[in-house]
Amino acid sequence: MNLKIAVLPGDGIGPEVILQAKKALYAIGEVYNHEFVFEEALMGAIAIDKTGNPLPEQTLNLCLNTDAVLFGAIGDPKYDNNPNAKVRPEQGLLKLRKELGLFANIRPIKPYKSLLDASPLKREIIEGADFTIFRELTGGAYFGAKTLNEEGTHASDLCEYSEEEITRIAHLAFKSAQNRRKKLTMVDKANVLETSRLWRKVTKKVSEGYPDVALDFLFVDNAAMQIILNPKQFDVILTENLFGDILSDEASVITGSIGLLASASLGEKNALFEPIHGSYPQAKGKNIANPIASILSAAMLLEHFGLFKEANVIYQAVEKAIEFKVVTTDLKPDSKFGTNEVGEFVSNFI
Amino acid sequence: MNLKIAVLPGDGIGPEVILQAKKALYAIGEVYNHEFVFEEALMGAIAIDKTGNPLPEQTLNLCLNTDAVLFGAIGDPKYDNNPNAKVRPEQGLLKLRKELGLFANIRPIKPYKSLLDASPLKREIIEGADFTIFRELTGGAYFGAKTLNEEGTHASDLCEYSEEEITRIAHLAFKSAQNRRKKLTMVDKANVLETSRLWRKVTKKVSEGYPDVALDFLFVDNAAMQIILNPKQFDVILTENLFGDILSDEASVITGSIGLLASASLGEKNALFEPIHGSYPQAKGKNIANPIASILSAAMLLEHFGLFKEANVIYQAVEKAIEFKVVTTDLKPDSKFGTNEVGEFVSNFI
Ligand SMILES: CC(C)[C@H](C(=O)O)[C@@H](O)C(=O)O
Ligand SMILES: CC(C)[C@H](C(=O)O)[C@@H](O)C(=O)O
Repeated sequence: MNLKIAVLPGDGIGPEVILQAKKALYAIGEVYNHEFVFEEALMGAIAIDKTGNPLPEQTLNLCLNTDAVLFGAIGDPKYDNNPNAKVRPEQGLLKLRKELGLFANIRPIKPYKSLLDASPLKREIIEGADFTIFRELTGGAYFGAKTLNEEGTHASDLCEYSEEEITRIAHLAFKSAQNRRKKLTMVDKANVLETSRLWRKVTKKVSEGYPDVALDFLFVDNAAMQIILNPKQFDVILTENLFGDILSDEASVITGSIGLLASASLGEKNALFEPIHGSYPQAKGKNIANPIASILSAAMLLEHFGLFKEANVIYQAVEKAIEFKVVTTDLKPDSKFGTNEVGEFVSNFI
Repeated sequence: MNLKIAVLPGDGIGPEVILQAKKALYAIGEVYNHEFVFEEALMGAIAIDKTGNPLPEQTLNLCLNTDAVLFGAIGDPKYDNNPNAKVRPEQGLLKLRKELGLFANIRPIKPYKSLLDASPLKREIIEGADFTIFRELTGGAYFGAKTLNEEGTHASDLCEYSEEEITRIAHLAFKSAQNRRKKLTMVDKANVLETSRLWRKVTKKVSEGYPDVALDFLFVDNAAMQIILNPKQFDVILTENLFGDILSDEASVITGSIGLLASASLGEKNALFEPIHGSYPQAKGKNIANPIASILSAAMLLEHFGLFKEANVIYQAVEKAIEFKVVTTDLKPDSKFGTNEVGEFVSNFI
């Protein structure tokens, strides 16, 4: 197979971990005879520094005309604490999600056997947990109108959803549940929010087409508790943008490290793959960032193009790395391995 | 002391647990020579059933003209799954919070020594954790304009905040931090939301008056993770309404059961005390609901009026109940004690 892949390393540890993902893909390409052509482009704080724009035209065009996007991380503290910043790195990512129509962000959560003791949660709580979060990615408060009055004393964010936006991701989530344990939990705050009530109504309607999938509802406050109390109860979780952001970071604790979690963002035409961790600026350039989430994003990319065997080889390589404790310090505080060594191990295993 | 206390048992298990809180207060009154006069009123689903209004005029008037409100729980599944319901139980609670101006909801999180193994989190993670969440309670998406178009295909919720709303709760949170370990963490999503950027700016400004308190910021997705990874890092958490709702339910896992957590909601003139758990309709009338959160709400009420010695007696009684395993099945699955027995134990101990 021939794939043209846009690579956006982004900020902080992004470039370091993306390098390891690329190495894994190169190795796969060689062994299984695929041609992966990578083209790098700027996004995020680094793009602001170099061009003034967090998502330069050129980057957007590249991403629109490519088979898939591999993305690192975004964000820089110099923008976070400046409420007056006119441009922010995150705007680049949000605009990219919107322009590529990446409405569904899919985040699988499943602990590795050899890491069952690495989680802050007890082994018996997490052993056997295996669920996937479907987070809506191009709507809600992320994209609604924002206001700040002239005096800077009053601000607002509008959270909006339409039936259509909910329907399309609900179908994906129900289809996924059909291929899994046939349970879908929709998370909302329908006792307070109008948008949540619409989510509930539309999801119920969509569910009629999937009579083999059991549908239930949880309020987001309760869900945030249940994910820790009893993660095994979940199969597929479907939720809106901001709730999905919060719950999926939270759920990462089940696996022992957010440095292990990859995600796929899908649209009608485009697809982007990224680790769910952020730019972790304190770790930048220190060869300590965990590259596994980024490598697993590459595996999700392969799966997306039907290369299941190849994706599996990556999953196995990662499992071996974890089993042999070739991991970064987030997983083993006294580890002598860094970003590079973990990446090397994985691509050598392939 | 003479206190007039409005009692709103509300829905589900509300009446059962409130009864135990009243018993504890009666016992305190007798031993320490205080007169607590209780007046009951309707709120929630039960108020809708009886009057059509989740917060009848009479209830509101009572609450406005009383020293404090003791509240049980609200909510009924028959409304949750009906997106077309015109009135909802929760509207009663939200209206009450607004009308009483209860802008600060304070939720202390601290595991009991004898329950360190009851949490899904490992003992070493939670041992020593001790923090308080200050949740803004009368603003944000809970109270902003809501829309649903005529076709029922598009909905919106507006999240709004003003400098004034943020300032007043920030002062309370900083004052609390001064009396604790002098650390305040503000939780927001300033990389995406305009209201969060206002929160950050205003909190920084308020912090200038509290130079002895260290201020830091966390994005809400990261905070949801950090509360589980390392709860000991927190002292005071300050956040907006919806984030506070999610994070405080989540944080309840540290204590082993949400049935242990009480909260105080404070305004300029009024104060309301309630367990943070919901109406738990499945448990209604079965004598299995944990009354401790409700009893601890009563203790918070006493503290609010300066009755620290009396509050302490309740805290001790609750600790004894837990130590002697006189607890409900949420804390000890094979327990033979119910709501009533736990409540009896506590008030007898007083
Ligand atoms: C960087 C930030 C804007 C982003 C989000 O909130 O969507 C990140 O947290 C994520 O989850 O991908
Ligand atoms: C019942 C509901 C409206 C309420 C809230 O979301 O505020 C509850 O969850 C709480 O935390 O007090």
